[in-house]
Amino acid sequence: MAIRFTLPGKVYLVGAGPGSAKLLTLRAIEALRAAHLVLHDDLVSGDVLAAIPAHISVHNVGKRCGLKKNSQEEINRRMIAAARVGQTVVRLKGGDPLVFGRTQEEIAALREAKIDFEIVPGITAATAAAASAQIPLTERKGASKLIFISNHCCAGKDNFQITSALAEDATLVFYMPGKEYEVLQTQLSQAGLSADLPCLLVSQVARSEQKLIRTTLGSLSLLPSLQTPNLLLIGSTLADARADETISFGNATREAGQKHIEEITLDLQEIRDQSTIT
Amino acid sequence: MAIRFTLPGKVYLVGAGPGSAKLLTLRAIEALRAAHLVLHDDLVSGDVLAAIPAHISVHNVGKRCGLKKNSQEEINRRMIAAARVGQTVVRLKGGDPLVFGRTQEEIAALREAKIDFEIVPGITAATAAAASAQIPLTERKGASKLIFISNHCCAGKDNFQITSALAEDATLVFYMPGKEYEVLQTQLSQAGLSADLPCLLVSQVARSEQKLIRTTLGSLSLLPSLQTPNLLLIGSTLADARADETISFGNATREAGQKHIEEITLDLQEIRDQSTIT
Repeated sequence: MAIRFTLPGKVYLVGAGPGSAKLLTLRAIEALRAAHLVLHDDLVSGDVLAAIPAHISVHNVGKRCGLKKNSQEEINRRMIAAARVGQTVVRLKGGDPLVFGRTQEEIAALREAKIDFEIVPGITAATAAAASAQIPLTERKGASKLIFISNHCCAGKDNFQITSALAEDATLVFYMPGKEYEVLQTQLSQAGLSADLPCLLVSQVARSEQKLIRTTLGSLSLLPSLQTPNLLLIGSTLADARADETISFGNATREAGQKHIEEITLDLQEIRDQSTIT
Repeated sequence: MAIRFTLPGKVYLVGAGPGSAKLLTLRAIEALRAAHLVLHDDLVSGDVLAAIPAHISVHNVGKRCGLKKNSQEEINRRMIAAARVGQTVVRLKGGDPLVFGRTQEEIAALREAKIDFEIVPGITAATAAAASAQIPLTERKGASKLIFISNHCCAGKDNFQITSALAEDATLVFYMPGKEYEVLQTQLSQAGLSADLPCLLVSQVARSEQKLIRTTLGSLSLLPSLQTPNLLLIGSTLADARADETISFGNATREAGQKHIEEITLDLQEIRDQSTIT
């Protein structure tokens, strides 16, 4: 029986950015072009997937909250098995792989298996959302801190440790804020944050379906349920945010808010076309 | 006398990322290639500047802390004047323009002058540093928050609002931490943060001169003074950080730490070459 020798392959843990393929880095493109196998999350956009050369094997290994279509062990096993037979593997994640990307288990598995790997950072959703809204996330006076918080359905939510003193000089960004805006509003109000504090809900940032909805903490519970992925930004810098719509209904209902959003007919593709570099 | 009509130009506020030109996004490359004029900060690396096509007019408009080589008003004036005569202007900033990028005045000036502009997000230093150190910035258990804090020489430093309860479940990233590590150590220790908390000082992230120095909060004051730009990361996820060197001298002096670092002869270029995709 012949013994086969293979050079070990390499794994790239790559940030795909939030949506538009134009937000991929050159290093991410290099890794994708060199790949034999791409294993991607649900959050990686169709625009990014379309940028992967057609001859490369591409698999969705997304794990929906609680569903675990693919277990972490199975993903680790596939990455390592492919690298061991000399393949170049790209593990492609939405946004940045190290910001709410659940990458620690994969790093640990690659280290244990002694597989060479490189992490390629990506544009995280918060900065892309701020770019679309045309507002800074920090300011010399008023937002000397920038705080990213996970609030998705699997997370424990008992204590944010967000005080009014902290929030007064910060921009808060909730990744995967879920839909329980009323709970969040109550929690932040009880912590002493002002009802006037500007908020921005960003749905599907950097995608053609992107929507920016502006409101205030006092009207947070009126926010409609938009298509995920979502991002919720809170802080004084949001006061000047460019938005598709502003919600501030006073005593109106959430249903009214939802209906109002459905009426938005803004042609986002047209805006995109106008912003093409000429 | 003939009257000249010109179409208005456009300004791109572009994130250059922390250093390597490979961390530019495709959108940033598009904007740079379309530009007539590039106005960049001191923090934009030589590697990125070398990626700008040679025919484009490139000017350093950096404002060093306190020195104000170029006033903000002058930068605004140049951007707007060029756009008004139909030019495409790229205002190029290190990292992401909206994260400690002092972009609010430029956005306000462009809005007031009714100049069309687009913001192109960039890789911020924190995610590039974590990628180099091969550690996540968040974890489901242990770091559900990620906090970016400005601590540079111009900032007021009297109150971080960082409590031990907050830090216990967060990763802290100090942008431009300055050199007064002893002050920072005292401040964070007095806030109740543990002396055992892992820290990582990252100098010149994503550049060939990059250095990663690992220590703990209790030994923070022993950190050497490294070449700026610097970044200081603090939190439990840093425990597994890959570093060029670890400092933990017990009762040793800062001078000993400095000397120790000077002895590091790690050939970073060699590491870079090895990581080239083949």
